[in-house]
Amino acid sequence: MIPYSPPLEDMQFALEHVAGLDEISALPGCEAAAPDTVMAVLDEAAKLARDVLAPLNDIGDKQPSRLENGVVRTPPGFRQAYRTYVEGGWNSLPFEEEFGGQALPAVVALAVAEMWNAANMGWALCPLLNFGAVEALQAHGSRELQERYLPKLISGEWTGTMNLTEPQAGSDVGALRTRAVPEGGHWKITGQKIFITYGDHDFTDNIIHLVLARTPGAPSGTKGISLFVVPKILVNDDGSLGDRNDVRTVSLEHKLGIHASPTAVLSYGDQGGAIGYMLGQENRGMECMFTMMNSARLNVGLQGIAISERAYQQARDYAKTRVQGKPMTARGPGDLAIIHHPDVKRMLLAIKSRTEAARALAYFAAASIDRARHAETAEARAAAQSQVDLLIPLVKAWSTDLGVENTSLAVQIHGGMGFIEETGVAQHYRDARIAPIYEGTNGIQALDLIGRKVGRDGGAAAGRFIALMRKLDAELAAQPGDDLATIRQLLGLALDAVEQATRSIVAFFAEDPARAAAGSVPYLNLFAVAAGGWTLAKQALAAQAHLASRSGNPGFNETKILTARFYAEQFLPAAAASLTAIAGAATILAVDPEML
Amino acid sequence: MIPYSPPLEDMQFALEHVAGLDEISALPGCEAAAPDTVMAVLDEAAKLARDVLAPLNDIGDKQPSRLENGVVRTPPGFRQAYRTYVEGGWNSLPFEEEFGGQALPAVVALAVAEMWNAANMGWALCPLLNFGAVEALQAHGSRELQERYLPKLISGEWTGTMNLTEPQAGSDVGALRTRAVPEGGHWKITGQKIFITYGDHDFTDNIIHLVLARTPGAPSGTKGISLFVVPKILVNDDGSLGDRNDVRTVSLEHKLGIHASPTAVLSYGDQGGAIGYMLGQENRGMECMFTMMNSARLNVGLQGIAISERAYQQARDYAKTRVQGKPMTARGPGDLAIIHHPDVKRMLLAIKSRTEAARALAYFAAASIDRARHAETAEARAAAQSQVDLLIPLVKAWSTDLGVENTSLAVQIHGGMGFIEETGVAQHYRDARIAPIYEGTNGIQALDLIGRKVGRDGGAAAGRFIALMRKLDAELAAQPGDDLATIRQLLGLALDAVEQATRSIVAFFAEDPARAAAGSVPYLNLFAVAAGGWTLAKQALAAQAHLASRSGNPGFNETKILTARFYAEQFLPAAAASLTAIAGAATILAVDPEML
Repeated sequence: MIPYSPPLEDMQFALEHVAGLDEISALPGCEAAAPDTVMAVLDEAAKLARDVLAPLNDIGDKQPSRLENGVVRTPPGFRQAYRTYVEGGWNSLPFEEEFGGQALPAVVALAVAEMWNAANMGWALCPLLNFGAVEALQAHGSRELQERYLPKLISGEWTGTMNLTEPQAGSDVGALRTRAVPEGGHWKITGQKIFITYGDHDFTDNIIHLVLARTPGAPSGTKGISLFVVPKILVNDDGSLGDRNDVRTVSLEHKLGIHASPTAVLSYGDQGGAIGYMLGQENRGMECMFTMMNSARLNVGLQGIAISERAYQQARDYAKTRVQGKPMTARGPGDLAIIHHPDVKRMLLAIKSRTEAARALAYFAAASIDRARHAETAEARAAAQSQVDLLIPLVKAWSTDLGVENTSLAVQIHGGMGFIEETGVAQHYRDARIAPIYEGTNGIQALDLIGRKVGRDGGAAAGRFIALMRKLDAELAAQPGDDLATIRQLLGLALDAVEQATRSIVAFFAEDPARAAAGSVPYLNLFAVAAGGWTLAKQALAAQAHLASRSGNPGFNETKILTARFYAEQFLPAAAASLTAIAGAATILAVDPEML
Repeated sequence: MIPYSPPLEDMQFALEHVAGLDEISALPGCEAAAPDTVMAVLDEAAKLARDVLAPLNDIGDKQPSRLENGVVRTPPGFRQAYRTYVEGGWNSLPFEEEFGGQALPAVVALAVAEMWNAANMGWALCPLLNFGAVEALQAHGSRELQERYLPKLISGEWTGTMNLTEPQAGSDVGALRTRAVPEGGHWKITGQKIFITYGDHDFTDNIIHLVLARTPGAPSGTKGISLFVVPKILVNDDGSLGDRNDVRTVSLEHKLGIHASPTAVLSYGDQGGAIGYMLGQENRGMECMFTMMNSARLNVGLQGIAISERAYQQARDYAKTRVQGKPMTARGPGDLAIIHHPDVKRMLLAIKSRTEAARALAYFAAASIDRARHAETAEARAAAQSQVDLLIPLVKAWSTDLGVENTSLAVQIHGGMGFIEETGVAQHYRDARIAPIYEGTNGIQALDLIGRKVGRDGGAAAGRFIALMRKLDAELAAQPGDDLATIRQLLGLALDAVEQATRSIVAFFAEDPARAAAGSVPYLNLFAVAAGGWTLAKQALAAQAHLASRSGNPGFNETKILTARFYAEQFLPAAAASLTAIAGAATILAVDPEML
C-alpha cells in the first residue's frame, strides 16, 4: 500500500491565501486559532492520519464491518484507532467550550477532517456523523439534553448518528412513517430506518441516535416531522448507563465501497417502542436538520477532495516508479518512468489542479461559516452567511463529482494494475462513488442552488460573489508574464458565462421552474468550475508575489502557477460552454418520460 | 435484477442509416447479409443474450471464476451457456467459410457481439479473445496450422487466448522476455505471462494460446518478437487430444470488475518448455498482432457501448418505478416516479444520447472494415481502410470512457440504492472500468491517433473524414424546424473546431511530437464527440424523413430527433472548447515530473 502523506504545504497555502486564516484568527471568539497554533494542530493531526488511520484503510476494505449475533464488529484496529483519536482530544476540536469543546474555527476543523477522510474515509464517517449530532444538540437541545449528552458526544466517548431515511423516504424525507407517541416524560418511537451510517459499532459504550419521526396527528410532509434523541443504552440520571433501549440492528448493507463503515438497517420499537426525547420543537425537526446541513454537506464535499488527494498521491508515486517504454520527451537511451509521458502528466495535473482548486474553495466556504458566526457587525455576518449558503451546494456537488473523476483517472494511470484490487487504487474509486449520493444527491444540491440560493433572491447573492471574484481581474492584470495573463483571460470569460447563466436561471426560475431545474446541474458545474478557477488564480497571484519577494518555497510557487494555468486552459472553456447546455434545458422538458 | 432487453430498433436504425447496411449487403462476398436475414440473425441473438446470458451476469459477479487445484472453475451456468452459444453456431458468424465460418460482414458480427457484451461482459470476453486468435490464424497461419486449429476455434469447440503482457511489459510490449528455442519441428517456450483473459477455463476441452516470445538472438524491442501457437493440450496428427503441454495456471487476479472472466497468470515451461508452433514469420509477431488489433479494439470499444446500454435500461426502469417526491413538472396532487424530475431525465438522456451516438459510430467503423475488405475497386478499399484506421482509436477510447461515465450516471440515478451491491448497477460501474485500460490504454489510443493516424499523413485522412461529415450540412440546412437547425449549427461549430485542432496537431507533430502527445487526449475526445454528433445528426435526418413520409415508428423518430438535439446542446460546445486545452499542451510540458 502506498502511504498517505498529508499535503500540509498546500493546505497551509490555501488557508492563508484563499480562506484568509489571518483574518479568521483575528475574529472575536477565534483567538485560539493563531496561525502558528493552527499549523501545530495540523502537524499533529497529520501524524495521526498518516501513522494510525491510513494504514487501516485497506484492512477496512478487505475486512468490512460485520453483524454477528446482533452486534456490529468493526474491522481489526478500527476501535483502537478511534480510542487514540478520542484520547488525543481530536473529537472536541470545533465544539463549544461550555461542554468541553475547544472552539477552534470551522475552517481549522475542516482542514483537520480532510486528513481523516483522506487517510481512511470509512473510519472518518463515524466522527463526521457525530459532528452533526453535536451541532443539532448545541443549537436545539434543552439544557437537560445538552448536559446529559453533549459532554460525551463532544469528547467522543459516545457517538451520534442521524436517522432520516426509510425505504419509501430517501430524497423525499417528508414521506417518512416512523412514529413517536408520548408516554410520561418521554416518547415511544416505532419504525424502521435504513442507510444509518455507523448505526451500530464497537467503538464506544453508547450510541446516541437522532431520529426523525411523526407525532400523532402531525401534518403530512416535512411540516409534520419531529426530531428525537434515542440512546442505544438508556442513560441514568447520574449519567451511568442503564438498560438497553428498544432499538435493534437488523442488517448491514453490502456496498460498493466504504466497507469499513457499517451502514445499518435499524428497527425501533420491536418490543413496544424505543424511549426517545424530543429535540427542539414538535413538527420542527426539519429545521434542526437544516441547522447542521451546511456543515454536513461541506464535510461530504470534503470527502471528494480528500479521496482525490489520496488517489493523486498513489497515482503519482506509481507513475514515478513504473518504468515502461520511452516517452516522446525522453532524451538519450533507456526507458523512463511513465510520469515522463506527456499524457500521464496531463492526467496527474488534472487530478492535482482540481483537488487544489476544490480544497481552496471548501476552505473558503468554511472560513465564511466562521465569518458568519464571528464577524463584528450583523451586516458582515449576514453577508458571510449568504456566501455560505451559496457555496455549500457548489462545494458538495462539485467536489464529490471530482472525487469520482479523479479516482477514475488515478485508476487509469495505473494501467492494468489499477484494476487489480491488491493495488489499492480501485478502493478509492469505489469509496468515492458514495459522496455524490449521500447528504442530498448532487441533483438535490443543484435544485437547492437554483431555487433557495439563486432563484429566490433574483440572483443577488450570486451577483455579489461574482463581483468578489471579478475583483481579482485588476490584480491579475497588474502582473507580468504569460501565465497570469492567460489565467486572467480565461477566468474572465468563465465569469462572463457564470453571469450570463445566472441571468438565465433567474429568468427561468421566475417563469418556469422546471426549465431552471433542467439546467441546474450544468449551471452548478459552471459556477463551481469558475469559482475553483478563481481560488487557483488567487493562489497563483500569491505564488507570484512570493517568487517576486524571494519568500516561500520557489518550487512550490512555480508549480502552483503552472497548475493554475493548466486548470484554466483545460477546464474553464469547457465549463463556459455549458451556456448552450443551460439554454437547451427546454429540450429536456420536451422529452416525455414515455420516450425514454 | 433488471432484465436486459436488446435495443433492436435502435441497432437496426444505426445499421440502416449510419452504417449503410444496404450498401454492405450489396458488396461482393457479403451476399449472405441481406437486410432481412441480418434482422432475423439479430432477433435470434437477442433471445440468447436476453434469456441465457443476461441472467448469469449477476451470478458471475458474485461467484467469480476460481482456481482450484490448478484448474479454473467458471461461475455456475457459464459453461452450459457457452455450449448453447456454440451449438447455436454463433461463434462462427464472421469467419471464413473454408474452415466452417459463415462469412457474415463485420458490422453484423459487431451488432451481435454488442448483445453478448451487454448481457454478460464477463462471459463475452471469452469469444472476444477467441476472435482475435482466429483472425491471426486466418491471416498468418500456415496451411497446416490452419487445418489443425481453425475449424475448432471457429466452431467454438476450442477457444483461443492472446498472451502479450509480462510484469515488466505492459504498454511496452517490446520489453517482453518469454523465450522460444527451436527443437525438432517445433519450439520450446519458457516464461511467465500475466493478465491472460480466459487463460484457463472449463468451457472447452482445449485452449489454444497465442504467445509472443523471443527467439535466440532476436533483436531487442518489438522487432524481435515472434508469435507462437501453444495449445494447452497437444493435438495429435489425427486431430485427437494428446498430452498436456507444459503450461500452468499460477493464479487468478482479484479484480475490480468482470469477476466472471478468469484473468490468469500463466507459466510456460516449468518442466523444460511448452511446445509451440511459430505463427507467421520469425521476428514479425507484432505485425500479426496489428492484424487483429483493429477488430479487437473495435470490440473493446463496443464493450463501453454495451455496458452503457445495460446500465441505461437499469437506471431507466428504476426511475420509472421509484416514486419519490413531487417533481417541478408535476401537475395535480400526489407523488410521481423520479423519471419526471427534469434532472433525472437529463441524466437518462445523457446516457441514452451518448450510447446511441457511440453505437452508430462503432457500426460505421465496422462497415468501413467491410468496405475495406469487399469494395469493388482498390481505391475504394484503400479509402475505407484509411477511414477504419482513423476511426478505431476514436471508437475504442471514446466509447470506453463513455462506459465509465454512463455507468456512473446510472449509479447516481439510483440514489442510495445504487451504492448497494444487490441492486446490480454497481457491477456495471465496476465492470466498465477495465475497458479504457485493456487492448491499449486510451492514452495509447490517443498517441496512435495523433501519430500514425493524423500526424504521419499530415492530416489527410482526417481531412477526408471531416469533409464527409461536412456533407451533412446541406442536408440539414434543407430541413424545416428548430431541432435540425440547432443540430446543424452546433455540429458545424464542432467540425470547425475539429478542423482547427487537426491543423494544430499536425503542426505540433511535425515540430515537437511531445506537444502533440500532451494534447492528444483532448483532441481525440473532441474528434470523437463531434463524430458522434454527426452520427446522431444523420439519424435525426433519417427520422425526420420517416416522419415526413409517415413511415416507421413515429415515437421512435420523434425521440431520435430530440435525443440528437439534446446531445448537440449538451456535449458539442464543451468538446469544441477543447481547442484551448489542445493549445495549452505547452503548459503540460513545462511541468517537470519533479514538480508533481
